[in-house]
Amino acid sequence: MTHTEQRERARALLDQRGIGRALFAHPGSVTWLTGFAAAPQLGPSLFSGGPALVWYADGDWTLIVLDSYAEPAQASGLPVVTYLGYTIAQPVAGPALLATALRGVAGASRPHGPVGVEVAHLPMALGVALQEALSAPAEVTAIDGWLLPLQTVKTAEELDKLRPNFALTDIGHAAARAAVWPGQREIDVWTAIEEAIQRAAGQRVPVGNDCVVGYRQNNVGGWPGDLEIHAHDSLIVDLSTLLHGYWSDSCATYYAGEPTARQRELHAVVTAALQFAISRIRPGAIASDVDRAVRGFITDAGYPVYPHHTGHSVGISGHGDPRIVPYNDAVLEPGMVLMLEPGIYYPGETGVRLEDAVLVTSSGAEVLTHHDKSLP
Amino acid sequence: MTHTEQRERARALLDQRGIGRALFAHPGSVTWLTGFAAAPQLGPSLFSGGPALVWYADGDWTLIVLDSYAEPAQASGLPVVTYLGYTIAQPVAGPALLATALRGVAGASRPHGPVGVEVAHLPMALGVALQEALSAPAEVTAIDGWLLPLQTVKTAEELDKLRPNFALTDIGHAAARAAVWPGQREIDVWTAIEEAIQRAAGQRVPVGNDCVVGYRQNNVGGWPGDLEIHAHDSLIVDLSTLLHGYWSDSCATYYAGEPTARQRELHAVVTAALQFAISRIRPGAIASDVDRAVRGFITDAGYPVYPHHTGHSVGISGHGDPRIVPYNDAVLEPGMVLMLEPGIYYPGETGVRLEDAVLVTSSGAEVLTHHDKSLP
Repeated sequence: MTHTEQRERARALLDQRGIGRALFAHPGSVTWLTGFAAAPQLGPSLFSGGPALVWYADGDWTLIVLDSYAEPAQASGLPVVTYLGYTIAQPVAGPALLATALRGVAGASRPHGPVGVEVAHLPMALGVALQEALSAPAEVTAIDGWLLPLQTVKTAEELDKLRPNFALTDIGHAAARAAVWPGQREIDVWTAIEEAIQRAAGQRVPVGNDCVVGYRQNNVGGWPGDLEIHAHDSLIVDLSTLLHGYWSDSCATYYAGEPTARQRELHAVVTAALQFAISRIRPGAIASDVDRAVRGFITDAGYPVYPHHTGHSVGISGHGDPRIVPYNDAVLEPGMVLMLEPGIYYPGETGVRLEDAVLVTSSGAEVLTHHDKSLP
Repeated sequence: MTHTEQRERARALLDQRGIGRALFAHPGSVTWLTGFAAAPQLGPSLFSGGPALVWYADGDWTLIVLDSYAEPAQASGLPVVTYLGYTIAQPVAGPALLATALRGVAGASRPHGPVGVEVAHLPMALGVALQEALSAPAEVTAIDGWLLPLQTVKTAEELDKLRPNFALTDIGHAAARAAVWPGQREIDVWTAIEEAIQRAAGQRVPVGNDCVVGYRQNNVGGWPGDLEIHAHDSLIVDLSTLLHGYWSDSCATYYAGEPTARQRELHAVVTAALQFAISRIRPGAIASDVDRAVRGFITDAGYPVYPHHTGHSVGISGHGDPRIVPYNDAVLEPGMVLMLEPGIYYPGETGVRLEDAVLVTSSGAEVLTHHDKSLP
């Protein structure tokens, strides 16, 4: 059985809130509850009836997935119900077949108070099917976001997925550093990164986030384009990799040839700001305090404060709670995995951002990313 | 204004079926109706409230998108309503903000019979918001799939998007051919393909579908893995690229070093089968007749018939109607874009598949893919 601890946490929460039956439809919820992660899709497939679902009733969990996912779903150790996807024998009818599968699973449950549903991710057609299936009409309670507070502290199983994932971004950064020189374009650096990561992983690995040359007007983030990197240009490379349904993250800034004196100065300040940020991470620290302190570090050094978050968590989402932002008074706890990413930006000229991942430990922070963030 | 012809077709259909108001939530519907395509996401973003939506009321169309998509959405020429996504000033609340935006747009419409909704893709929470917004309770009519028959014949605007997209798979195939030799792994060939395609496009381009060595048990399709390609192994490379919300497709088979006599034989038969398939494409041809004829060509040559479709359409979906499969009596029409992909497979040993795209013309077929499918 995989992700047992997650389901225990979820069950305790549902019990406490009087929910005996629930339907989870957010892909992140499904991965977190079961360990199952569908292959990354780029838009709806003709053969899929909708998202993978998890049905909960009185302590029992069932996964409902497309037939081609039977094997990875069964690896969870949970009961799995599948429906027909690809066929050449009849018109494809994924949504109807998934609805039938859901009716079969949910209809077998005994009447039992309100039914929790992730209504922001369950397709309306499946919501109707669920209501039809219940032997007695049941009130629907929206449970979107309920799992988020349970997801902030990682289990040992999740850390085992995240560590090799962060190692992949380390590999991507080494490739980026080697690929930045005058005349290269953003996209050329990007393909070198993707190649290195996927060859190391021995499989397809989706990669985010940013690859932006300093002279862009918005030089904080964006997808790589056809833009040429000239001598002395800075290039921000922010990499997330998706492995087993979990996201890593990390960022560094590279230079085409010699950095200017100004860039060396910015790079030194951001390096110090990142170290300062890491030093503030410990159990009991307040997210907004960390945010304010790191912003203060940048402004005290005489630079404009970055327009984005100081950091955020990662896991089933590439950007999750707790966010290290001004409004967030969340208390840091051991087992949280946090990104920290101060930067300094002069739009249209140059920008520097450096980012590490840390695991909150019982006494401080363990750095999980090991990419070279030094000046050349 | 982009995709005007599509909206005219859709409006005529909705008029004919007595639908004065409708909500489209399938990403393909949104792209087809407006030309707007969201950047490929790999799972839900914390900052997004749900899919981009198109609201239709009495001949008028409105796009509802995340604020970061304002510019590409406005390029459609249609009215655009946005909602707040990324912020560090307050907790993110995408689904609630999207629901509010939808209520504002739909609530302004005058009561007018049933409301059409793509219920297989609209999140349940937005279905509730829609009902709340209407000034008088309205019956919901499921309109999932209604646009599919309208999407089979491509407009000139769509062909202008598809042609350069097929050219990208040509580039990917040239890279694949050059990257197959003993000692390479599937993933190594794959990264060479992705690199060539993205460097040529000057931007990120998602790439599907298959990269499988002949000795796999299932050697018909699958993602590239850590599997080494040995001398005389075949490698099926089936490539789809996603550009501006539209999918291309094409397939070829390569060999590590010298193909065996057996592989040369299979390759020749499949080459002839593909030419035969192309020769059967003309207006008025029946999809199932083409399917049966091409299967017959393979079996008449003394080989086992492939376990998959003979072909399918592409466009906003990588696999759309009309499908060239046994059950489908669809009549081919000028302007359809069809993939044709016969193959011969010996599981665990070797497999050969070749695939071209054709545009159905007034008298026959124009081949849109130009990759080298010859034996080395």
